[in-house]
Amino acid sequence: MAAGRTGRRPGESGTRDTILEAARREFAQHGYDRATIRGVARGAGVDPALVHYFFGAKTELFTAAMQLPVNPAELAQALLAGDTERIGERLIGTFLSVWDHAANRDVFIALIRSAVTDEHAATLLREFAVRELFGRVAAALGTPDAELRASLVFSQILGLAVARYILRVEPLASTPAELVTAAVGPTVQRYISGDLDPDARLRA
Amino acid sequence: MAAGRTGRRPGESGTRDTILEAARREFAQHGYDRATIRGVARGAGVDPALVHYFFGAKTELFTAAMQLPVNPAELAQALLAGDTERIGERLIGTFLSVWDHAANRDVFIALIRSAVTDEHAATLLREFAVRELFGRVAAALGTPDAELRASLVFSQILGLAVARYILRVEPLASTPAELVTAAVGPTVQRYISGDLDPDARLRA
Repeated sequence: MAAGRTGRRPGESGTRDTILEAARREFAQHGYDRATIRGVARGAGVDPALVHYFFGAKTELFTAAMQLPVNPAELAQALLAGDTERIGERLIGTFLSVWDHAANRDVFIALIRSAVTDEHAATLLREFAVRELFGRVAAALGTPDAELRASLVFSQILGLAVARYILRVEPLASTPAELVTAAVGPTVQRYISGDLDPDARLRA
Repeated sequence: MAAGRTGRRPGESGTRDTILEAARREFAQHGYDRATIRGVARGAGVDPALVHYFFGAKTELFTAAMQLPVNPAELAQALLAGDTERIGERLIGTFLSVWDHAANRDVFIALIRSAVTDEHAATLLREFAVRELFGRVAAALGTPDAELRASLVFSQILGLAVARYILRVEPLASTPAELVTAAVGPTVQRYISGDLDPDARLRA
């Protein structure tokens, strides 16, 4: 078969893949904050407008490059759309529903393993997950200490994911999602909007 | 200088080191549960009684082999000795006071990194930390679901440690220990002795 006569559009999908590869390199080298669409375009040898055309903003490009099953910015919006007293519950419920599927989980496990062993990957996870997802949620609610709250939420979700999916600690690993959500949701809710010093130890 | 005339007792410290090396191999190969003092002794080419003489029970041998700054069994007893309504706070306070010191932290970071990337190390952390430490605490309090509670406590402490010390997520990484304790202590307390379904989602 001669090239270009198969009916596919190899040019387009090839360009997409080239951009995604360049994006992974750009994010790995510079972290999320300092990575730019322009840098990705340069790495892929294409015009920045083409990167925008295929993937939209940096958040979406990152989501595609890392094969994340959900776009954190959209997830943050969805979480904020309902009852604010049940954001913690929705957050845990959503995470478990995504990650309890093996295919999604594998991508996530790879991301965490890299972050725990590699400084660049750590920066990426930190800048992206904490600020783009949990930070948006805490900031939108307008509670004080939004950044500290976001990092506390991150600590519980990260620990839950590592314990349930990577270390497979029982019975947590096989406890039904609804029960885990009931148990951990209130933790996340308090970190997001509750009193961070409920026993008034520091105010005493 | 002739050997044996320096006043040291090279035989004893050499034997201790040989036993500790054999213990690390035994734990790595068999996990915590299936590792035996007898197996360690065989690996070190010594009598099991000598392993007991130097290190006591398996918990202490593990603590020494992994260079843990505290013996989890003793820690569990100390935590249980005070006000049971403040165990969560004491647990987080103790962890932070130990791990905020760089030397202790390095051992712990190495342990977590191995566990996240290696199946044998994962088994070890799971069997040891979850059951020997958090499991003892939850079981001693006699609350139902002690094992699930222990794994929930583990998830929060693990996530806190990874976020604060490995990923160094700000501002959590540089927040004073007292504030982190005030914020996270109540989470641990609820997992240990509180209602795991406070909003009665599953009872509804």
